[in-house]
Amino acid sequence: MSTPALERLCVHTITTRPWPIETAASKYAAAGVKGITVWRDALAGRDIARTGARVRDEGLSIVSLCRGGFFPARAQAERTRALDDNRLAIDEARALGAPLIVLVCGAVPGQPLSESRRQILDGIAALLPHCEAAGVKLAIEPLHPMYADSRSAVNTLAQANDMVETLRSPHVGVAVDVYHLWWDPALENEIARSGRLRALFAYHVCDWRTPTLDLLNDRGLMGEGCIPLRQIRGWVEAAGFDGFNEVEVFSTRWWAADQDQYLQQIVQSYGEHV
Amino acid sequence: MSTPALERLCVHTITTRPWPIETAASKYAAAGVKGITVWRDALAGRDIARTGARVRDEGLSIVSLCRGGFFPARAQAERTRALDDNRLAIDEARALGAPLIVLVCGAVPGQPLSESRRQILDGIAALLPHCEAAGVKLAIEPLHPMYADSRSAVNTLAQANDMVETLRSPHVGVAVDVYHLWWDPALENEIARSGRLRALFAYHVCDWRTPTLDLLNDRGLMGEGCIPLRQIRGWVEAAGFDGFNEVEVFSTRWWAADQDQYLQQIVQSYGEHV
Repeated sequence: MSTPALERLCVHTITTRPWPIETAASKYAAAGVKGITVWRDALAGRDIARTGARVRDEGLSIVSLCRGGFFPARAQAERTRALDDNRLAIDEARALGAPLIVLVCGAVPGQPLSESRRQILDGIAALLPHCEAAGVKLAIEPLHPMYADSRSAVNTLAQANDMVETLRSPHVGVAVDVYHLWWDPALENEIARSGRLRALFAYHVCDWRTPTLDLLNDRGLMGEGCIPLRQIRGWVEAAGFDGFNEVEVFSTRWWAADQDQYLQQIVQSYGEHV
Repeated sequence: MSTPALERLCVHTITTRPWPIETAASKYAAAGVKGITVWRDALAGRDIARTGARVRDEGLSIVSLCRGGFFPARAQAERTRALDDNRLAIDEARALGAPLIVLVCGAVPGQPLSESRRQILDGIAALLPHCEAAGVKLAIEPLHPMYADSRSAVNTLAQANDMVETLRSPHVGVAVDVYHLWWDPALENEIARSGRLRALFAYHVCDWRTPTLDLLNDRGLMGEGCIPLRQIRGWVEAAGFDGFNEVEVFSTRWWAADQDQYLQQIVQSYGEHV
């Protein structure tokens, strides 16, 4: 695998969480980053359309909005509220100019995973008319099995691909995040299957540190861990993916660092390890 | 599913880590526990055969010795040392009177998982003559994918069953631990497959807490989390398993508690949730 093109580097706003989105956008652009994925919290209190325009004025492509999902709940009223919030997210994506929403599908501790999976499928299906009207796609992101209790009952790419096959909509695909999926012996085959389904909508990179000190916020920057990033990018590109390589790092350690230096490190790590 | 028989309750020495094995054995027996799985650290500095006899004199069955494994390494010399240590563990199990060794198979950060899996298969195969001579069996324990970096490249029961099929020895089976496997959509089918292979050698229980605060030492006691314990025991028993239900809890929180009260709580949780 060759070095990835800088033109395909995207950074998630949460990666540089201390920066407001306006700062992030101008800093990213100055560093040569070409894409941005916007987390919804970064839009709080802002005119979304104007924020989108401002980000694009910096020369950045808006790759996706993070995140929708969290469909399962014990009560129907809660599931209805979740759908309403997802429709709001779709409206936000449209206003922002983001073509895609990444879904963290949700799970309820103690509710059978099979039931949560049914509720996830029902929830996504219910959103499709709104997606079609808004011209916004959805990417099911399988989450690492360590989040199966409360964050997602979709924990392998096989499960996400199965859902894509069941839903049969050009508006539904998958997001492959190396952090969640790198361990899976079926990963190469399932990435190829996502490609055959024309469902490989997003590719997220970071790294897995040894030891990992926190289940949520101790991700590594690419090169700090053990994930075979070049190999997985090879599989993703062999499957026909030609979108952005998105850097999504939740890290208490990196958030505490100087964010300008960190951004330089992101660009360097991208070239050396992705 | 009915309440499990108290006669099938086994506790791992590490569950009550503050107690020396002699204390653990007498306390377990007094509480009605019938089985004990011995961690190797509990044997440090002791005559192993005499310790085994003492434990049995309390009326306890020795269910297994934890743990062997950690086969992968970058250098051949290290892999050879790992085999030597596993042969020592087999000798210890024989001296103790434990019919089974649980294998945490190992992984090397940054070494391809496929290579680690090959080294694991080679390692187990190399031990088989020693197992046969000693009359000691080995149980491959798939570990949760969050341990794929450094503890085990075997992360699903399907992978462990595949290895059992490849090795084709009555001395090699699997250990099903709910903590590692509860999230897997293939679990029911793979437990049935272990049964067909006559390879279901051990069943370990605890629970998954929400939130989980530490990747290693924040396991829950049964009932403190979201694992469908009764359902999984149903699958295990439907597969023909009639051995012990082994309580294996690593918990900084519980280790800091009064161990006598904790043991009472273990017995109660076993009856109510396993």
